[in-house]
Amino acid sequence: MRLQSRKKVMVKNKVFGGDRVLTCIPLVARDEEVLLSQAREICELKPDIIEWRVDYFKNVSNVKSIVEGLMDLSGIIGDMPLIFTLRHHNEGGQVILTQCKRLEIINESINTGHVDILDVEMLNGVDFINKVKSLIIENNTKLILSYHNFNETPDEEFMLDMIKKGEDLGADIVKIAVMPKNYGDVLKLLNVTYRSRDVINIPLISVSMGDIGMVTRMVGGLFGSDMTYAVGKKPSAPGQIPIGDINAVLDILGCKL
Amino acid sequence: MRLQSRKKVMVKNKVFGGDRVLTCIPLVARDEEVLLSQAREICELKPDIIEWRVDYFKNVSNVKSIVEGLMDLSGIIGDMPLIFTLRHHNEGGQVILTQCKRLEIINESINTGHVDILDVEMLNGVDFINKVKSLIIENNTKLILSYHNFNETPDEEFMLDMIKKGEDLGADIVKIAVMPKNYGDVLKLLNVTYRSRDVINIPLISVSMGDIGMVTRMVGGLFGSDMTYAVGKKPSAPGQIPIGDINAVLDILGCKL
Repeated sequence: MRLQSRKKVMVKNKVFGGDRVLTCIPLVARDEEVLLSQAREICELKPDIIEWRVDYFKNVSNVKSIVEGLMDLSGIIGDMPLIFTLRHHNEGGQVILTQCKRLEIINESINTGHVDILDVEMLNGVDFINKVKSLIIENNTKLILSYHNFNETPDEEFMLDMIKKGEDLGADIVKIAVMPKNYGDVLKLLNVTYRSRDVINIPLISVSMGDIGMVTRMVGGLFGSDMTYAVGKKPSAPGQIPIGDINAVLDILGCKL
Repeated sequence: MRLQSRKKVMVKNKVFGGDRVLTCIPLVARDEEVLLSQAREICELKPDIIEWRVDYFKNVSNVKSIVEGLMDLSGIIGDMPLIFTLRHHNEGGQVILTQCKRLEIINESINTGHVDILDVEMLNGVDFINKVKSLIIENNTKLILSYHNFNETPDEEFMLDMIKKGEDLGADIVKIAVMPKNYGDVLKLLNVTYRSRDVINIPLISVSMGDIGMVTRMVGGLFGSDMTYAVGKKPSAPGQIPIGDINAVLDILGCKL
């Protein structure tokens, strides 16, 4: 029923770009104790994917504590695929670290074997992305290349170019998240989502952020977005929706069987 | 939060074009007994509006039985606004009647004082619409002028022209319902819905029909559609959604407080 991607990406037992929209809940814990307790709660809500937003971790520059966190987290989430995201401050993330330091963290984390998917912002540039690719290849980690814009929704052609760029740079999955000023911007993002199926072969994650864009988290899957980010019990940011509500809408739309 | 129309239309205690998307359940009964029993069931589901699709009535050419049906229906639905719709066969309706006969039915029905809103297809032409307008004016009945296309989704400019034509012809509310072939057509209808706010002042009802268009019945309100058609317990046509599901989605989207 929904628009699927030509190329599917299988991660553990989940298929990106298939007939089901996947749900993902991010972990945004400050320390390992909270991380693990959040993970336990979230597992009960049965999302398809869990994302660890490592940049929220207060010991983020301590590689050893991240590796420990990953090992312990993996013991809790079992065979649920994990996205590892270390979002830099200028990408809408929480930390400021050199690219060198970030590569070190990514390298050590991937070597644990517990990172199924790595999310990296495209604005880091080709050199950084190529280094990341050389690190992940051995562990068969999948790569999300993402474009975020927290200020506005660029025009449709620009967004399509960014999506195409993601595939050209070697992403397994491409992500675009933009901020709407009105419902016209929301439709722009949905139009781009739909049109991107003629432009790329790989799965796409698209989202129009904030309260105005909230609807895209529920219905974007029909138009070609292959995963939607939800929250556990309470939204941690405007526009985020509890996974129960998202599942209810996906059920009605027939996107999640 | 949702996009409202510049001009509001108040019908009894309901506002078209305000901050809430209105829900409407059609009655499609073959005879008066079923009509009244459907009406009783539907009242319990608390839609904002009830529509009587008079063309489904087997005694449709018997004006007296329609007038009786209206009087008895009114006793059941109380102060819930009623839309009276006599859809001709070539408009996607169930009957073939001359314009003259239809004007007679409309006239007698309106004179009961129980028709709050009359829905007339635009393709009936200016003369017919002007005659209808002269009939309804005394009873303060509101007029929906509608455009249906059960074959396809025309291009955006054509749809905007039809919507503008509805306002120009003197509609209080304009309705457009078109059939999508793919999700691109669904987005076309949503784009037109959004853009129509720059073109007309009056409330709009827009719908992309069938299974593919189902999503517009739930989220069209955000983009400027002021009413959505739902069904009671079971869908009677593809794409129609039970009112409970619609209310659940509107609640999540914050369109219905």
